Amino acid sequence: MSETVTIALDAMSGDLGAKTAVEAAIRATRKFTDLRIILVGDEAVLSPLLKSGQTDLIEIRHASEVVTMEDPLAQALRGKRDSSMRVAIDQVKSGAASACVSCGNTGALMAIARFVLKTIAGIDRPAIITAIPNIHGHVHMLDLGANVECSAEHLQQFAMMGSALSSVVDNIESPRVGLLNIGSEDIKGNELVKEAGKLLEASNLKYIGYVEGDEIYMGEVDVVVADGFVGNVSLKTSEGVAKLVKRYLREEFTRSPLSKVMGLVASPVLKRLAKRIDPDRYNGASLLGLRGIVIKSHGNAGVLALENALKIARLEAKKGLISRIESAIESQLTKPGDQ
Amino acid sequence: MSETVTIALDAMSGDLGAKTAVEAAIRATRKFTDLRIILVGDEAVLSPLLKSGQTDLIEIRHASEVVTMEDPLAQALRGKRDSSMRVAIDQVKSGAASACVSCGNTGALMAIARFVLKTIAGIDRPAIITAIPNIHGHVHMLDLGANVECSAEHLQQFAMMGSALSSVVDNIESPRVGLLNIGSEDIKGNELVKEAGKLLEASNLKYIGYVEGDEIYMGEVDVVVADGFVGNVSLKTSEGVAKLVKRYLREEFTRSPLSKVMGLVASPVLKRLAKRIDPDRYNGASLLGLRGIVIKSHGNAGVLALENALKIARLEAKKGLISRIESAIESQLTKPGDQ
Repeated sequence: MSETVTIALDAMSGDLGAKTAVEAAIRATRKFTDLRIILVGDEAVLSPLLKSGQTDLIEIRHASEVVTMEDPLAQALRGKRDSSMRVAIDQVKSGAASACVSCGNTGALMAIARFVLKTIAGIDRPAIITAIPNIHGHVHMLDLGANVECSAEHLQQFAMMGSALSSVVDNIESPRVGLLNIGSEDIKGNELVKEAGKLLEASNLKYIGYVEGDEIYMGEVDVVVADGFVGNVSLKTSEGVAKLVKRYLREEFTRSPLSKVMGLVASPVLKRLAKRIDPDRYNGASLLGLRGIVIKSHGNAGVLALENALKIARLEAKKGLISRIESAIESQLTKPGDQ
Repeated sequence: MSETVTIALDAMSGDLGAKTAVEAAIRATRKFTDLRIILVGDEAVLSPLLKSGQTDLIEIRHASEVVTMEDPLAQALRGKRDSSMRVAIDQVKSGAASACVSCGNTGALMAIARFVLKTIAGIDRPAIITAIPNIHGHVHMLDLGANVECSAEHLQQFAMMGSALSSVVDNIESPRVGLLNIGSEDIKGNELVKEAGKLLEASNLKYIGYVEGDEIYMGEVDVVVADGFVGNVSLKTSEGVAKLVKRYLREEFTRSPLSKVMGLVASPVLKRLAKRIDPDRYNGASLLGLRGIVIKSHGNAGVLALENALKIARLEAKKGLISRIESAIESQLTKPGDQ
């Protein structure tokens, strides 16, 4: 029998409420028999949503407050010490859970997680990473917005963390790491990227050099590293293009009665396409660099999307992501040739 | 009778060669009766491609050299003074043409254009701008890679130039200008963008504030301003997503004999969709901030794409883009409240 994995799920934050969280928890525990969930939130709200048979796998941990999207950081961090977000992270700190998942405000989640869990030795700043669909399946990109001003050393740390995560989640021995830049030649790019490129060349990562924006989707790379400003712009730009194409498809297939018929005929294929570019399938961004696994789910994540975030949390916990990052950093610091 | 517009077309640079350039010139002069073209390049190559009836509207200006994609900047700028690229720009400088178009190396084109034409007073650095399809039709974005390290003042200048271009090309009195950022709240973003935001708020442009990556495609904005690094990553990312969706569509519609039939049935709609996201329709990026109109066309631009670049060059020339930018900058420097 395999060891169980317990995940603390902040059931109150996000737009869709406790019902979605409870449903996702039920579905995930059905799918993964080794999974246990601690639902964190208002017991009076959560209790009625669970049936008696489900309480073996899913327990409730009461928290009296909720961090809203509008709460300033200071309020989230110091004003609401009994928030579902804070208590979910506390479960990871205490060891009651080996990962936590929240649909709440990213800034608050990062601030509380950093305050409660602290960063891994050798990591100055945590970063946000997610999988993005690409021509080969998917690619991981970081940082997605936690750090808007970065040094070359920060980018190097992001590369080490991203490589460790891809290794664990994608089951790749040495993930290929690329630096997001505006040209593939050495002469191009800004000073930050050039300097980071030199650090990565001297590292023991499988650094493949610069990648341009289109290579996130078409290139031979497992991890794409950027500062949080550039990474966020790139991710949001992608979302914009995907929304535009979706809109165009709808417009074209409803333009005339004949187009509508064509759309009906082609609908099985169009549905498969929509599924492939559905962001829900990739829901669940990891806050990397903390001494614990913290997954940020979209604020408007539905049941399936939230279930996917739980799946990522489970995998990272089972594969021991944190110790993998710790040893990656240690081996980098003591790598041969550095003496 | 309307005044004629003469455009110098570098017929030798780019991947597709002189034949494509000549065809595009012929098509464009048929479409726009006020258009005259100076084809710049090897006379021995170009002459046989023109029929006798066409030489009234299209003349050849001999140039003995070609700037290649591999030429270092110094070679392009100082080593090949009789290149088709240089001679095409010279036509603008001398007044023989009111705009030029080239499919050659962007870096070389910018360097030569800057050397020959110089920048407009009040503009420190030229920038690259192009139209991008969006939910409302299109949006203009700059800088797309000419300037990887920018100050807030540079972004402000980009905003002024982009606004003037959109006003001319889109026929909008006061185009809405947005700054590309990673959040819509004032607290977000890096220092550069925050500082530029303050400058734009104090300007006489119609500044609408920050826009995120997805709002390039979905938002209410006419001009999006970014530094060249971020702008280039965003544009290339978009190209990558578009290529990915195209690939997915092809895969899904060829997955089985039945999917293929559905694809055949839906093909008129799919073709319309492909046309809407076809980058050729938006081919032709303007090098802004120079004392002359210079349009960079894709290196692998086909006849229709190159024709579109000529159309943009014609419109900018007819509407007097350069003097519009000059007066925009002048009015900014003397705007009420500054005394």
